[in-house]
Amino acid sequence: MSLLTISGSPSLNSRSGRLLDHAAARLRKLGHVTERLPVRELPAEALLHARFDHPQIVEASAQVARATGVVIATPVYKAAYSGLLKSFLDLLPQDGLKGKVVLPLATGGSKAHLLALDYALRPVLAALGARYVLASVYATDAEIGSDSDGGVLLSPELDLRLEEGIAHLDETLARLQVPFFGAASDEGAGRFVRGNAPLQLARA
Amino acid sequence: MSLLTISGSPSLNSRSGRLLDHAAARLRKLGHVTERLPVRELPAEALLHARFDHPQIVEASAQVARATGVVIATPVYKAAYSGLLKSFLDLLPQDGLKGKVVLPLATGGSKAHLLALDYALRPVLAALGARYVLASVYATDAEIGSDSDGGVLLSPELDLRLEEGIAHLDETLARLQVPFFGAASDEGAGRFVRGNAPLQLARA
Amino acid sequence: MSLLTISGSPSLNSRSGRLLDHAAARLRKLGHVTERLPVRELPAEALLHARFDHPQIVEASAQVARATGVVIATPVYKAAYSGLLKSFLDLLPQDGLKGKVVLPLATGGSKAHLLALDYALRPVLAALGARYVLASVYATDAEIGSDSDGGVLLSPELDLRLEEGIAHLDETLARLQVPFFGAASDEGAGRFVRGNAPLQLARA
Amino acid sequence: MSLLTISGSPSLNSRSGRLLDHAAARLRKLGHVTERLPVRELPAEALLHARFDHPQIVEASAQVARATGVVIATPVYKAAYSGLLKSFLDLLPQDGLKGKVVLPLATGGSKAHLLALDYALRPVLAALGARYVLASVYATDAEIGSDSDGGVLLSPELDLRLEEGIAHLDETLARLQVPFFGAASDEGAGRFVRGNAPLQLARA
Repeated sequence: MSLLTISGSPSLNSRSGRLLDHAAARLRKLGHVTERLPVRELPAEALLHARFDHPQIVEASAQVARATGVVIATPVYKAAYSGLLKSFLDLLPQDGLKGKVVLPLATGGSKAHLLALDYALRPVLAALGARYVLASVYATDAEIGSDSDGGVLLSPELDLRLEEGIAHLDETLARLQVPFFGAASDEGAGRFVRGNAPLQLARA
Repeated sequence: MSLLTISGSPSLNSRSGRLLDHAAARLRKLGHVTERLPVRELPAEALLHARFDHPQIVEASAQVARATGVVIATPVYKAAYSGLLKSFLDLLPQDGLKGKVVLPLATGGSKAHLLALDYALRPVLAALGARYVLASVYATDAEIGSDSDGGVLLSPELDLRLEEGIAHLDETLARLQVPFFGAASDEGAGRFVRGNAPLQLARA
Repeated sequence: MSLLTISGSPSLNSRSGRLLDHAAARLRKLGHVTERLPVRELPAEALLHARFDHPQIVEASAQVARATGVVIATPVYKAAYSGLLKSFLDLLPQDGLKGKVVLPLATGGSKAHLLALDYALRPVLAALGARYVLASVYATDAEIGSDSDGGVLLSPELDLRLEEGIAHLDETLARLQVPFFGAASDEGAGRFVRGNAPLQLARA
Repeated sequence: MSLLTISGSPSLNSRSGRLLDHAAARLRKLGHVTERLPVRELPAEALLHARFDHPQIVEASAQVARATGVVIATPVYKAAYSGLLKSFLDLLPQDGLKGKVVLPLATGGSKAHLLALDYALRPVLAALGARYVLASVYATDAEIGSDSDGGVLLSPELDLRLEEGIAHLDETLARLQVPFFGAASDEGAGRFVRGNAPLQLARA
């Protein structure tokens, strides 16, 4: 299972981008393979004029398509996600997040924009068919600093919230790795299938 | 694992309530145990004046607390969930849906209110700490009829959407039944534990 | 022109209710006549079970119908307006706020719920056909205190925001008092009508 | 008073853009002067990378700043406004719509996305400080056609809704042209000032 991080900040060295890279590093420590998709590196013309067939857009869409987990980070501008992020989401197929687990992250100037993720981004992710959109992690700018080596430093509270978000994502992905046989399955209905690899989970 | 259905319609014989009962019947066929919580049967005074300690409110909260899966149905009024439903959700603890899987259903006069579930209800369920809020199922009034015995009849399209929602809920609950050991677990890290009941799932 | 204040708090002595009464007092000082509609005083059964024809509901709806300006106050619960407030709004006709100017107020435990008014309440007010929904005024609980006589004390910042909201409402209502003749009007098209009472405003 | 139309469609010949141009033509017939701002014609790099100081961005911001009325049109993508439109709104100052009257228009594939305007765009416009955001006009693609000369043809229902939106905008702008003296004004308080040009309106 692959993980993709999508950064929606128009800035090169944004707080939301650094928070996202930090989350990716933690996920790799848990054994996940992560890919990066900084939307700002996509060709601007293609993005804004909806050129679905531009090679870099095609490749970015393929990155999304092959990921099972997606961590999306955006700054909050004008009480919502960035236009840059939305420009990319606009280019995905209608069910472009189908079957995927999404962890949303956001940064904002103050706590006053905390609800932007849940009210603005969550419905868009639902419209894209996401399987699960996990509890979002919101950080104020003041909660994200730098250490002497230029590494990211999080406030203890943010560190804990991010840790919970990552653990939730990690657990959810692990549970999805177990093949599931629904009610229609001859062999699996009504019981757990055990003892042979890969592990199989049937409807209880 | 128990399932709870919460009906938020102020009417005794509402379309959203009938859709909900139908969903519950399907879930029971899959082996689930379901409880009912029609909010309209709670004492109105206690509900509206936030009397958290009224015995029936205490019992209703306990019903929510012990459920792992919750199916919530509401009519769409004025572009959002019913005030009746929200009155009950207001009485739950801040994290009253923590760890729970929620399937939202709604009915409305036309397709024009489809987004009310995702834009209005979903953020409230997120605020209540729901683990997963599944893709919502929206039905227009015209899609819900009656057969000659008074049973509910769904349009084929609605029937399919409801079936998908129920299958998603069923699968999600089945996956949650498998104990999960995260990275910190000595015995489970990095592998699947097999061969003994209950089945245990460790982070891959 | 009459003004109506609608309080959506389930509590008798709520911060949102006190903020609302304070706003009403200021509006009266500006010469407005204000009526009160504390939703919690309406019969709970009638409210929750959608008994449109209950005399007190009929009277409350009539209060709304005859108001040109409406100030609505709600506590933020679970990232949205109170269920009590919504229960009342659910009982209004589809275009129950048609032609009206609405000033929304809300109180919450922290700044983190500031967006609830704009994301949750504003679309509902739009669905009810409000002519103008003014910029909302949000207050944290800590910004609303009491003086030694039990009167309300606002933080200076809140006082200023409320003053701006009230001035905006006052100005908007004043502008609406001037009869307007649109393009179709024989006498008024293209000019301002002056010099005779009542003042008449024609499309410029 | 000047009017600005902002088109947020990434397509050159979009339905939302044609609806917007049609609205502008009607407004000109009512005597208004209109300017155009098709966001897709702004330099994509500057837009996406938040280059506030690019000459064309500076000029576009100035267009917004000098307009009293703004008509904004967007297609509905993924249950919300276009990323292109939001990219431009992100570049405006925090109170970039302060004092302005905004009429939102949108087009979508079906009625199912009608609420996107009120739930997604309205809060963003509120965050930008708009004085009044008028009732939005939503059109399905099927309601917008072409006549034999390539002109736009609207369904009768859409035509009526657009007419109402335009009349509301026109009236609102006319009312704003009348100077208003609030309570603090020495000369105007408590009465209408009449009989001298320009007409002056004092708080009643």
